[in-house]
Amino acid sequence: MKIVEMNAIYYQNSFEKLNKFIDQKNPSKIFILVDENTHEYCLPKVLPEIETHASIEILEIESGEKSKNIETCIQLWASLLELKADRKSLLIHVGGGVITDMGGFVASTYMRGISFVNIPTTLLSMADASVGGKTGIDFEQSKNIIGTFALPEMVLIQPSFLDTLPYNQLRSGFAEMLKHGLISDKEHWNALINIKELTVEGVSPHIERTINIKKQVVDIDFKEENLRKTLNFGHTIGHGIESYFLHSKVPLLHGEAILLGMKYELEIAQNKQLISEDLKNEIIANFSIFYSDILQIKVEFESILPYILKDKKNEKQNINMSLLSEIGKCEYDCFTSLDELKTIM
Amino acid sequence: MKIVEMNAIYYQNSFEKLNKFIDQKNPSKIFILVDENTHEYCLPKVLPEIETHASIEILEIESGEKSKNIETCIQLWASLLELKADRKSLLIHVGGGVITDMGGFVASTYMRGISFVNIPTTLLSMADASVGGKTGIDFEQSKNIIGTFALPEMVLIQPSFLDTLPYNQLRSGFAEMLKHGLISDKEHWNALINIKELTVEGVSPHIERTINIKKQVVDIDFKEENLRKTLNFGHTIGHGIESYFLHSKVPLLHGEAILLGMKYELEIAQNKQLISEDLKNEIIANFSIFYSDILQIKVEFESILPYILKDKKNEKQNINMSLLSEIGKCEYDCFTSLDELKTIM
Repeated sequence: MKIVEMNAIYYQNSFEKLNKFIDQKNPSKIFILVDENTHEYCLPKVLPEIETHASIEILEIESGEKSKNIETCIQLWASLLELKADRKSLLIHVGGGVITDMGGFVASTYMRGISFVNIPTTLLSMADASVGGKTGIDFEQSKNIIGTFALPEMVLIQPSFLDTLPYNQLRSGFAEMLKHGLISDKEHWNALINIKELTVEGVSPHIERTINIKKQVVDIDFKEENLRKTLNFGHTIGHGIESYFLHSKVPLLHGEAILLGMKYELEIAQNKQLISEDLKNEIIANFSIFYSDILQIKVEFESILPYILKDKKNEKQNINMSLLSEIGKCEYDCFTSLDELKTIM
Repeated sequence: MKIVEMNAIYYQNSFEKLNKFIDQKNPSKIFILVDENTHEYCLPKVLPEIETHASIEILEIESGEKSKNIETCIQLWASLLELKADRKSLLIHVGGGVITDMGGFVASTYMRGISFVNIPTTLLSMADASVGGKTGIDFEQSKNIIGTFALPEMVLIQPSFLDTLPYNQLRSGFAEMLKHGLISDKEHWNALINIKELTVEGVSPHIERTINIKKQVVDIDFKEENLRKTLNFGHTIGHGIESYFLHSKVPLLHGEAILLGMKYELEIAQNKQLISEDLKNEIIANFSIFYSDILQIKVEFESILPYILKDKKNEKQNINMSLLSEIGKCEYDCFTSLDELKTIM
């Protein structure tokens, strides 16, 4: 078993750690990647905290999943070249999953890899995207199909960034936290479903535990050869739903699509007799506390199938899912036929 | 010190090893990347040797350094997606440095990395590009500026491919072999300069040793943090020359540019009193056995400077060279001023 230790993750008041890191690293230049939202709302909270003699350049991209493509990477590589980024330069990503995923890909391929730090500003990115070392972009309607495994040197978790986050974004990230509980930690699941209100105050105390669940999995199986596949619970169907809705008028947020994906994958687990009907119903009833509107969305089998067939986990065109067998336990490499998929939709 | 072992390199009759590997790996599909030349001359020597039940698809790109760009990668990623390559697919690169460098980049970023095997068909690629795990493409006139560190699962060295290689291509690869001798193995250097004729028969017996020199360096410092920089001897100025000539009517081959780069960098080493004038002259005299025409090429300081300033080894815009101090010994991180550079041109 190869252990790849995820690097330092710091909670609260973590700028002290960042400044110490910058001081030791002595980067030739610092580049901060933002979108127009994090430029306005988060950068003013980051910039005054950074103490350095290195020059700082701001790189801004358009927010949203539609920017997460190779064209934006080409622009970012060109900007880095033009602004004379070298191997000793440091990239700091201030944003949600699009920024940290794509920024990580750009950093890990520029001059064969320069250092980067993630400062996630959404709950989704704190709880999931910014930790674990998966970088990537969407390509030809396939989610994260081009990317690398590359760890940030540091991840700073500052729940105060969530203060300006819209409710639906908070709820999107909360879905990945629920997933962490479901696949490997019943206590975490119980704590989360007992949150009275889905607010920053309600969620923040649980972020560290949710990250630790992911960290434990990733440290054991960094390259997703076995255990890490459990983190994909809900994602085979969820990514399909997300990709399909990406081109609709009101795209679903990642976590919303994953929540719906988890519901459908629980149905499949029940049909495969991995999980009882009662337990499935109990979990979905708990989903409905905060996601009743999402659970009502009807998804057509034919609409999402083309995307599901492109899923990275598939082998020889067999659909590969990670399915729950109990709360806190997830099986991976559950191959699922088209018929099984069709039955539940 | 972190040791990353380069993977299996096999010499002669190596298809037996490849077939054993394919049998064990049981890939979902095999993709063979070629250009129009290796399609015509090399693929007919490869295809009949491969024993597998997996389907084989041929991906062809245009030959030459001008294809080594992000647009070609985009085409290759799209082809892989369209042909339903999955994480268990295997890429086999049959070609020179462009094919193995770019193919490695495409493989290492498709679904965050699929397995690949290099079958180099030029001396340059056998002696250098296909081993060591550097992948990359050119971008905005900068050589190999976008890329990854990713090792092939296997490298097959079949000197018989060299039979159809033009003389100037053979000579180009030979320059990297000379470099390996110069930076760390005087015996290898002596053996090479005593070759009577630059032919496949003359060169082939020395390929294994030249690769082993590179392998020793790469195993110690895979990510080029220290010792691996010595492999860049001749390349700071050489890459600049190569990039400049890429846009001329008759581009210089990589090894030709590197040979010229080594000459200029020997001049700088002498001016820095790292090496004596006599030793410098002795080395250049040996270069002139096979490269007298190349050594006569006049390069203008102003022409190549913009490219040199973009070199990946530079830090804070200081030009960083690896310079010879004796035959078999190379110093790295030798920072060189613009004045020092101008003096020798």
